[in-house]
Amino acid sequence: MILTVTLNTALDLTYEVAALTPHSSHRVSRVVERPGGKGLNVARVLGALGHETVVTGFAGGTTGETVRALLAARTAGQPVRDALVPTTGATRRTIAVVDASSGDTTQLNEPGPAITPGEWAAFTTRFTELLGDARAVALCGSLPPGIHVGAYAELVRLARAAGVPVLLDTSGEPLRRGIAARPDVIKPNAEELAQLTGSREPHRAARDARRRGAHTVVASLGPDGLLAATPDGLWQAAPPAPVRGNPTGAGDSAVAALLAGLVDGTDWPDRLAHAVALSAATVLSPVAGEFDEPAYRELLPRVTVQTPATAA
Amino acid sequence: MILTVTLNTALDLTYEVAALTPHSSHRVSRVVERPGGKGLNVARVLGALGHETVVTGFAGGTTGETVRALLAARTAGQPVRDALVPTTGATRRTIAVVDASSGDTTQLNEPGPAITPGEWAAFTTRFTELLGDARAVALCGSLPPGIHVGAYAELVRLARAAGVPVLLDTSGEPLRRGIAARPDVIKPNAEELAQLTGSREPHRAARDARRRGAHTVVASLGPDGLLAATPDGLWQAAPPAPVRGNPTGAGDSAVAALLAGLVDGTDWPDRLAHAVALSAATVLSPVAGEFDEPAYRELLPRVTVQTPATAA
Repeated sequence: MILTVTLNTALDLTYEVAALTPHSSHRVSRVVERPGGKGLNVARVLGALGHETVVTGFAGGTTGETVRALLAARTAGQPVRDALVPTTGATRRTIAVVDASSGDTTQLNEPGPAITPGEWAAFTTRFTELLGDARAVALCGSLPPGIHVGAYAELVRLARAAGVPVLLDTSGEPLRRGIAARPDVIKPNAEELAQLTGSREPHRAARDARRRGAHTVVASLGPDGLLAATPDGLWQAAPPAPVRGNPTGAGDSAVAALLAGLVDGTDWPDRLAHAVALSAATVLSPVAGEFDEPAYRELLPRVTVQTPATAA
Repeated sequence: MILTVTLNTALDLTYEVAALTPHSSHRVSRVVERPGGKGLNVARVLGALGHETVVTGFAGGTTGETVRALLAARTAGQPVRDALVPTTGATRRTIAVVDASSGDTTQLNEPGPAITPGEWAAFTTRFTELLGDARAVALCGSLPPGIHVGAYAELVRLARAAGVPVLLDTSGEPLRRGIAARPDVIKPNAEELAQLTGSREPHRAARDARRRGAHTVVASLGPDGLLAATPDGLWQAAPPAPVRGNPTGAGDSAVAALLAGLVDGTDWPDRLAHAVALSAATVLSPVAGEFDEPAYRELLPRVTVQTPATAA
């Protein structure tokens, strides 16, 4: 199975309003609840692709109950197995307020519950057990309050000790520390990569991130696709044309495709093509975080993958 | 006991953000959860004043569970007894996004669950049973989806048939229909009263609302206090000076004071003085919907109550 870790899971709420006007009152015309947090999104996409997937991390309170119920209720593809560790604190909510007229989104993110040292110890025990059956693991998203900033470095080391390939998708100091523990893949976006390396030139920044410890760097360049700096060289993969839609979850779909390619042992150009097509199909889906299956199949053969020489 | 009805209970969330900017992302620095809906607020204030109080209405889903847990956890004064009727649909959330710098608030209100005919029937049965022990009843707030617009008129008639004095605090068509069933008291604000009667002149509008069926109309005039049109005449009650603060819950505190005066059999000037002082003490409290007890005691003897001749 493929294991995904979401330390700061969320109950994702989407609120539709006519138009958000600060300092006034709004009637929410539509409420959608989804299980949230990057690792849960990645797992759902993997499940939809038919992969056996297990999620771990933390869930607590009535919001955590709702997240687990929503996760269990999803039926498309392979069910995702819930190995979340309970917390005393309640799982956070994230709210996307969507203006019905323009589709513009305003995001409100709760910080998440404080994790106690005992809960962190219970998690690392569970994580180590789950690694026994894992063919790959993804560590995804922000750290909730109370967890030490080197937490991802600790988990990368546990995965490497167990011989399980590990992908790290986070930002800021947790990414900086995590890279030093030598993860197999990191997947920053252009902004996160610039923040890490100080360079806004993606090729240079990706190579720099490799020197800092990541075996492979797959940088998402938004509508321009993905840039991969691997031990075998550089590749750039792009959709046939820019796609318009809701980018929520596009990065998580790319992570899912990279994990799937990793366990299937496909080569980098093939993995990147799948990741770009799945990402674009997620942007095109009317439902945030889901992917448009016919669009995925249609886009896949049309993704261009260029080698460093032609890409430069 | 005093009974309060909240058909559309809510999980009230207050989010503190640096400043709300549409179409950007916000880190919520502080989350406060409270049991919400006007009738629950009224009951909490009555409990704090030492009155035996029972709440009914609807609660469902994990949000409803949270509301009930928060209601049970409150310790100040007399505990509020929970006689809420379960629903299949989940209790709505209401979110107040407060800008930390200015204190300005942006409100997002979910519509609430659709109530089924069976749930409404279960509620009216429970309501009728509770009326047997009630010395007064307040019907508070908006109607959730699925409940017929004459619902409050139906409940006013049930209360009157049981000989229990009934206060109605709602707006729009449910208020218009409810008044025709002849409630003992209505407590509109100036805007609701104008909407009901077509007049923005409070004295004229209050008298008009009495002609439509309300025995007594207590109109809240914001910082100017309360205007009461009763069978015994008109009174206007005002705080000694305008108070600055968060007006959330000030109207609910006024309702609580009016109910307390009703069951204690005090005269109208005394009831209105308590209602104005409690309202102002609620505006002054740093916590939305709570009242500042020392401020309440200090303000009470300083509220001015004028008879119609001097008020005109």
